Amino acid sequence: MKTLRDIGEDALIERLVRLVPRDENPTAAPGDDCAVIDPGPGSSTLLLLKTDALVERVHFLSDASARAVGWKSVARVISDFAAMGGQPGHFLITLALPPETTVTWVEDLYRGIADCLEKFGGVVAGGETSSVPTGSSAVISIAATGSVLRNRLVLRSTAKPGDVLFVTGLLGGSIHGKHLDFTPRIEAADWLVSHFKPTAMMDLSDGLAKDLTRMAKASGCGFTIGEAALPLTPGCTPAQALGDGEDFELLFALEAERASELTATWPFPDLPLTRIGKIVRSGQGESLTGGWEHFL
Amino acid sequence: MKTLRDIGEDALIERLVRLVPRDENPTAAPGDDCAVIDPGPGSSTLLLLKTDALVERVHFLSDASARAVGWKSVARVISDFAAMGGQPGHFLITLALPPETTVTWVEDLYRGIADCLEKFGGVVAGGETSSVPTGSSAVISIAATGSVLRNRLVLRSTAKPGDVLFVTGLLGGSIHGKHLDFTPRIEAADWLVSHFKPTAMMDLSDGLAKDLTRMAKASGCGFTIGEAALPLTPGCTPAQALGDGEDFELLFALEAERASELTATWPFPDLPLTRIGKIVRSGQGESLTGGWEHFL
Repeated sequence: MKTLRDIGEDALIERLVRLVPRDENPTAAPGDDCAVIDPGPGSSTLLLLKTDALVERVHFLSDASARAVGWKSVARVISDFAAMGGQPGHFLITLALPPETTVTWVEDLYRGIADCLEKFGGVVAGGETSSVPTGSSAVISIAATGSVLRNRLVLRSTAKPGDVLFVTGLLGGSIHGKHLDFTPRIEAADWLVSHFKPTAMMDLSDGLAKDLTRMAKASGCGFTIGEAALPLTPGCTPAQALGDGEDFELLFALEAERASELTATWPFPDLPLTRIGKIVRSGQGESLTGGWEHFL
Repeated sequence: MKTLRDIGEDALIERLVRLVPRDENPTAAPGDDCAVIDPGPGSSTLLLLKTDALVERVHFLSDASARAVGWKSVARVISDFAAMGGQPGHFLITLALPPETTVTWVEDLYRGIADCLEKFGGVVAGGETSSVPTGSSAVISIAATGSVLRNRLVLRSTAKPGDVLFVTGLLGGSIHGKHLDFTPRIEAADWLVSHFKPTAMMDLSDGLAKDLTRMAKASGCGFTIGEAALPLTPGCTPAQALGDGEDFELLFALEAERASELTATWPFPDLPLTRIGKIVRSGQGESLTGGWEHFL
């Protein structure tokens, strides 16, 4: 009998979404960074929904700083809101923890959550605590609402052939620390959707190779990139930039004729912006392998 | 160093809510069945948010029917929406599963989720899958939006001395099967808020002893109940009715002068409605012990 290890995460999700009732005409396709709920034509604001989980010994080591884990748990979700052009709203915190977890550990986790919400916005609206059996991994599951003005929404599925591809920041090597204390690109995304609204955008969570492939597939396109152009974290190879994952930078596509103006006016001197390639027609371009895979 | 086993779930939550940014004037206090988000005075509808988790070997046995577990995972959340007078909306499904989980098991889980959503309303808007290490318990975490008309919202914190207490259904013994295939009382709650709006309401998840104590405490009141009046599942003792938990029935308070009319007009012949006691002033009444406790 086939297991999750055999088929992997993307194939699993494709099978599951067919089984359940869904919105008939969703604003964002399944697989985008957030679900988008349209309250109706009278509303200028769309509701964003996102859930994300951190698992001990998968996403963080058992001796990781609880405060850093708390930061990461909500920063990942805020990164997804940023990728849609949105802002964080109300957070629900679900903790499934072994009974021998110390109260201090959980309080530190919450302090990390508070640090991130105080910096980027968002409030805690509720939560749930449950035990897991002794020896089981702790699971921190975050669900949150966000909001985005209707005219600022950016999907990952709307890139067009000819668009230029950009990434923010440096890629690769997140395991050496950045994966626990990264900055969700909410400020950069907010500026982008105001001034150079991308045709498509997503955040890089599973590595550029996997995530860019997803953006191109969702958009019905192909892509080409220049590996020599990748912005590498010092000490990292292009393979690491493509495959390590957990960069939490923005990947976006922009009409080619606006690319020079964007690079000339980019207002964040401490945040590199790099043109890495372009979107091409489906069936053209190249393919990339690598990137983080659950269940392997 | 103190562990979660030492302090228990309620004390943990009290400590955690103080650490994070929250809505300054929440419509529902922390600890109510759902969080209530008020979009503003122009909206006749309030947004409900709820998260709830099922953990293998805590909430279900490893050989339980995956389809029943899927049903339970969303039925618990729908029960919470019912307890506020609301209706289910958009669901986010987070699965943290060991890599040796079979694809069939996960598909059956999703079929159970679909069964429940098709019966009671609600759609899947997204989700997240993650691995947990081999040997760790599977965790199914559900987050959902619901909605309630502003004038139909019922909190657990607004019972008044003199109110009569009612429960729906039969209590106790859920472990013998009901905990996996219960009916969320969405239809009964909808009728109640339309015809006999309770002064306070909640669903019974951790046992009447614990949950009634929570309602009374949240309302700044005490209570008295007649143990002889408790509606017992056949074969169960009053202690089981008080302490087993996972009944997922409605507990509600109603102005005393409307109690007789309610029992006379109750339109659900297959769903018992039982008057079990009353709300009294704080410091009066009785206290109950027992009920499900996480982390012990």
